[in-house]
Amino acid sequence: MTNLRALTPPYYAVIFSSQRKPADGEEYAKTAEYMETLAKTMPGYLGIESARGESGLGLTISYWDSEEAIASWKKQVDHQEAQRRGRNEWYETYDVRVARVDRAYSMKKAR
Amino acid sequence: MTNLRALTPPYYAVIFSSQRKPADGEEYAKTAEYMETLAKTMPGYLGIESARGESGLGLTISYWDSEEAIASWKKQVDHQEAQRRGRNEWYETYDVRVARVDRAYSMKKAR
Repeated sequence: MTNLRALTPPYYAVIFSSQRKPADGEEYAKTAEYMETLAKTMPGYLGIESARGESGLGLTISYWDSEEAIASWKKQVDHQEAQRRGRNEWYETYDVRVARVDRAYSMKKAR
Repeated sequence: MTNLRALTPPYYAVIFSSQRKPADGEEYAKTAEYMETLAKTMPGYLGIESARGESGLGLTISYWDSEEAIASWKKQVDHQEAQRRGRNEWYETYDVRVARVDRAYSMKKAR
């Protein structure tokens, strides 16, 4: 996997913010894991960060080298099917935001 | 609070990705809560989304109407102090990315 920290902006981010339905099975977790594995095989993929809190609000940010790469990922067949199931089965609601990362910096490690 | 969904891009996002140290007290939670309250009083503030998973990885995304608003928030005195304590006490590491949101869409609710 690309070291995100080594990248110089600009690059692109897809911010996926979702609220899960309270009851669901293992299929969601399996699909989410498969989607992450699949994203990593896509051209232009740079990295992913994901966290879901106890309230059920989840944030997943995937990073890409171009808007074209994002468009291809959105249209990928298995991803389309996961999106459909997400809408119908797993999410109360979600938001997607496509953004261009212009600046980035990290915590300086103490020595 | 502004309804983020009602906003038309472009607007700006600060993506704060952090890994917490395993042991810390209530002061972190209090400071995080105060920072969120404080951010909401800042000019140009649009909204915030936050999730921290079991692994200790946290994602907080704050949204702003301009890069100037982001610069003012970064320099706010109490926020500066929280950043200092974050580096010294609470975080193993963190990354900050400033991005311009160009497109946004939400799940269509079933009727």
